[in-house]
Amino acid sequence: MPRFEKIEYKPIPVSDLMLEMKNLSELMIDLAYSAALFNDKELAEDVIELEARVDTLAYLMDMEIMVAARDAKDAEALIGISTVAAATDKISDAAADIAAIVTRNINIHPLVSEIFEKTEKQLTKATVKEGSLLVGKLIGDLDLAALMGVDIIAIRRNKDWIIDPKDSERIFLNDVLITRGAPQGVKDFKKLAEASLLTTEAQK
Amino acid sequence: MPRFEKIEYKPIPVSDLMLEMKNLSELMIDLAYSAALFNDKELAEDVIELEARVDTLAYLMDMEIMVAARDAKDAEALIGISTVAAATDKISDAAADIAAIVTRNINIHPLVSEIFEKTEKQLTKATVKEGSLLVGKLIGDLDLAALMGVDIIAIRRNKDWIIDPKDSERIFLNDVLITRGAPQGVKDFKKLAEASLLTTEAQK
Repeated sequence: MPRFEKIEYKPIPVSDLMLEMKNLSELMIDLAYSAALFNDKELAEDVIELEARVDTLAYLMDMEIMVAARDAKDAEALIGISTVAAATDKISDAAADIAAIVTRNINIHPLVSEIFEKTEKQLTKATVKEGSLLVGKLIGDLDLAALMGVDIIAIRRNKDWIIDPKDSERIFLNDVLITRGAPQGVKDFKKLAEASLLTTEAQK
Repeated sequence: MPRFEKIEYKPIPVSDLMLEMKNLSELMIDLAYSAALFNDKELAEDVIELEARVDTLAYLMDMEIMVAARDAKDAEALIGISTVAAATDKISDAAADIAAIVTRNINIHPLVSEIFEKTEKQLTKATVKEGSLLVGKLIGDLDLAALMGVDIIAIRRNKDWIIDPKDSERIFLNDVLITRGAPQGVKDFKKLAEASLLTTEAQK
């Protein structure tokens, strides 16, 4: 996203905006804690980028709501949406605050790491490279949960994020996959995506 | 909690404060969305009460950090904790904003409900009543996930909250259990807790 993008009114359905804001804000919390725990600057930068995206969505949402509300009755009907949207924006801000600790090289105190370790599963980013057996596969066909104990919780495809992708989602070359799971599982999965794990080894 | 409790310094370990703040803030988001989706005023009031609790924890945390930091080096070591604590506080505020829609009788627009329905599993509160077969049982012994498709995500015991209780946690009379699961499952579970479901029927 260009850094000084002009926010222009776009007639995107309010429900689409809301769904994306809610999903992104929840993903961002997980990403932020994981970035802090593993001092993962790349993940932290993703969170900060996503925060800018949620801000954009929040502006668009506010404009949609203004346009939609013609009278007091409409306004009453819409104030609930507007409040929930503002709350998801606040959550995404909080996630970005956590991520900024990492990008600004502030030390995460061992106490905090210890707590995150207790409560968070590891999130890892993996880019699907040429030669990976993931290319062209449906998520449902991979049965990753059973095979490696990992879940794909988000896909970044170009500039879009697909949150909590369905089994029917196909994986493409250059997709960035965010996975959650046990440390060994996500490590193996990363190798699989980056085509440095042999097919036979992965299918054991 | 008394409404105008005086905040007094208590030497609670920072790690305990942080763990509780993180867990509560995450639980609150789930509770708040669920309260909004099902227009559940009781759940919404719990969220608002929890928000006051997180505020108290945040004050205690700030004081602990002040006391712990004797010099610039300490302050550098502690700024990460302080930032994460502030972020969890912000998340809990956002959850309380969503809950306030419910307690203030603001209509949740059908669009929002639709989105929450897509993304949230139902959360239900059930109080363990006399005669319930849950009394005295370990969570692990119940095998609720397999039996009814529900999880106990929190227990409220008097004024304490046990978040994400372990299998070794015992259920007591008057515990308030927050469960998540499929609509029929949580409904059956509520009956089981409130002793209005016959033992034999539950064990089918």
